Amino acid sequence: MSLDEIMKLTILTTGGTIDKTYDEFQGSLRNSHTVLDVILDGLRIPDLFIRHVEVMHKDSLDMTEEDRKIIAKAVCDAAPKSDGIVILHGTDTLADTGDYLYESCTDLSIPVILTGAMRPYEFRDTDATQNVTEALLASRLLDGGVYVAMHNRVLQFPGVKKDRQARTFVRN
Amino acid sequence: MSLDEIMKLTILTTGGTIDKTYDEFQGSLRNSHTVLDVILDGLRIPDLFIRHVEVMHKDSLDMTEEDRKIIAKAVCDAAPKSDGIVILHGTDTLADTGDYLYESCTDLSIPVILTGAMRPYEFRDTDATQNVTEALLASRLLDGGVYVAMHNRVLQFPGVKKDRQARTFVRN
Amino acid sequence: MSLDEIMKLTILTTGGTIDKTYDEFQGSLRNSHTVLDVILDGLRIPDLFIRHVEVMHKDSLDMTEEDRKIIAKAVCDAAPKSDGIVILHGTDTLADTGDYLYESCTDLSIPVILTGAMRPYEFRDTDATQNVTEALLASRLLDGGVYVAMHNRVLQFPGVKKDRQARTFVRN
Amino acid sequence: MSLDEIMKLTILTTGGTIDKTYDEFQGSLRNSHTVLDVILDGLRIPDLFIRHVEVMHKDSLDMTEEDRKIIAKAVCDAAPKSDGIVILHGTDTLADTGDYLYESCTDLSIPVILTGAMRPYEFRDTDATQNVTEALLASRLLDGGVYVAMHNRVLQFPGVKKDRQARTFVRN
Repeated sequence: MSLDEIMKLTILTTGGTIDKTYDEFQGSLRNSHTVLDVILDGLRIPDLFIRHVEVMHKDSLDMTEEDRKIIAKAVCDAAPKSDGIVILHGTDTLADTGDYLYESCTDLSIPVILTGAMRPYEFRDTDATQNVTEALLASRLLDGGVYVAMHNRVLQFPGVKKDRQARTFVRN
Repeated sequence: MSLDEIMKLTILTTGGTIDKTYDEFQGSLRNSHTVLDVILDGLRIPDLFIRHVEVMHKDSLDMTEEDRKIIAKAVCDAAPKSDGIVILHGTDTLADTGDYLYESCTDLSIPVILTGAMRPYEFRDTDATQNVTEALLASRLLDGGVYVAMHNRVLQFPGVKKDRQARTFVRN
Repeated sequence: MSLDEIMKLTILTTGGTIDKTYDEFQGSLRNSHTVLDVILDGLRIPDLFIRHVEVMHKDSLDMTEEDRKIIAKAVCDAAPKSDGIVILHGTDTLADTGDYLYESCTDLSIPVILTGAMRPYEFRDTDATQNVTEALLASRLLDGGVYVAMHNRVLQFPGVKKDRQARTFVRN
Repeated sequence: MSLDEIMKLTILTTGGTIDKTYDEFQGSLRNSHTVLDVILDGLRIPDLFIRHVEVMHKDSLDMTEEDRKIIAKAVCDAAPKSDGIVILHGTDTLADTGDYLYESCTDLSIPVILTGAMRPYEFRDTDATQNVTEALLASRLLDGGVYVAMHNRVLQFPGVKKDRQARTFVRN
């Protein structure tokens, strides 16, 4: 698409570290709701029309095959009416979901960009804002396919894994 | 270039709103030094090798034809040794510099991305971090040419102007 | 008063550096509205009942004798119904207003605490939040009188001046 | 003491929610080091000479009678050479430590101020900065005794407890 056009973007949120919030009663971090709207409020995105679907609120270590099927269905449903799709996802099994989407959603004519964070958005030195900013821009610049965008890297599926030591994603 | 490679990026800083800092003695905003390093410290960019050149510290309304010549020379000098160039620039005459670079730097094989901010970085609700994040990613994803990246938009020169009312850049 | 009681606090805002906000159209700092509510939203003050009076929006260098009379009248009006009064004020002539209030408001049985900031609240490294936090606590702990609270200092009028070099308040 | 004098303050850190930091490898909050220096760096406290003692790094739910004895010894050691003492402490058993100090440190001629936070400092909407600011000012304004300062309240021991529902401290 042209780079300065109005764009229709679907954002699917699934939980993950990026969305973990602090419960003052329990003193612990939990996936209870998404912080996407707060992140978007801090960005200037005058040409984006956003449709936000809360698919689930899960630590990605707890995601099952059934959960990935639900995410893939949400992607297939959204694809025909969107110019791009961004998915907020826990990083621990993000690569599994990326591979799953690559297998299930063939003939994708739009970019599907997975992203997440190593540190929850509620922390002042989070990487969430950077990663969402990058995913939003990547959804505008890339061709059809499944990608992860994070830490100034964009990697296309298949062939991506998390490097736990470096705390980011790399090519297989 | 491939999307997950080590990249050699030259960043030129010239002043502008993005770099305005507060002088407590005078109670006013001034272009005295660049905040680029502070912005970069807040980002996770493990695959970027950055070379930073402070070309000048000017409000872009005060830039002369001579200043634009200096910026163009810095771009020409940097192009052969860089995979991409990002320029931090005041927004008021950013489009003039973009046109000037488009005219002077023909046969650019790398992307040259201009960016800036409507609100200085030192303010908590600045757009500087978003715009620098976008410029860094755009420098990785775009073909050779001169662009402005800002507010989830990427526009290629020539044919770009500032929309003062909307406080962003649009196509002519 | 006892230290854990519900307290009725009047806050008068007059402008000053603390309240300067950035105008993106002009690219300059102005006193157009107060940021007090945003500051208070960020604090946990469950036992304070606050009544906020916007007295004026002025750079304190522009304040006249007439303006100080208006502020003194607001203090006299608020004193009988308040347990404490906090005044947000520009630092350049804060000491003049403090002396004026000391002269005009004799027999004060409640503390009147002036405060302000060396760097506007909209900047990320502002001292506004610290100073307001201190003024709110000082209004709870001090006896009747006129004071400035700022930078972990509390000084009682008369006999206070701004130290321009150190950018804070000191005893004469 | 006079309100504008140079002050010698001992700060004891013991752990607690205020000091919990995020471990990206484990994805969890832990008490591994103190954030006190970062908090102090953000404040303007030109007249404070601070001596910082890291007594322990514990969730206060894990504190034993032996731990409280260690804290009390640190207070007794610091009292003769300090004008005030501030203790950063987990809120869950802060009132137990306050009572213990009240019993063990009789004839205190300086204020000993306990404080903490309901939300760790690393979170952007933490109450840690407010509470430390208040404790630092209270240590300057109060007479000898043991207190908790938090959320614009100052309460003197004995007779203080945590109100878990309201997530703050109240009188018994």
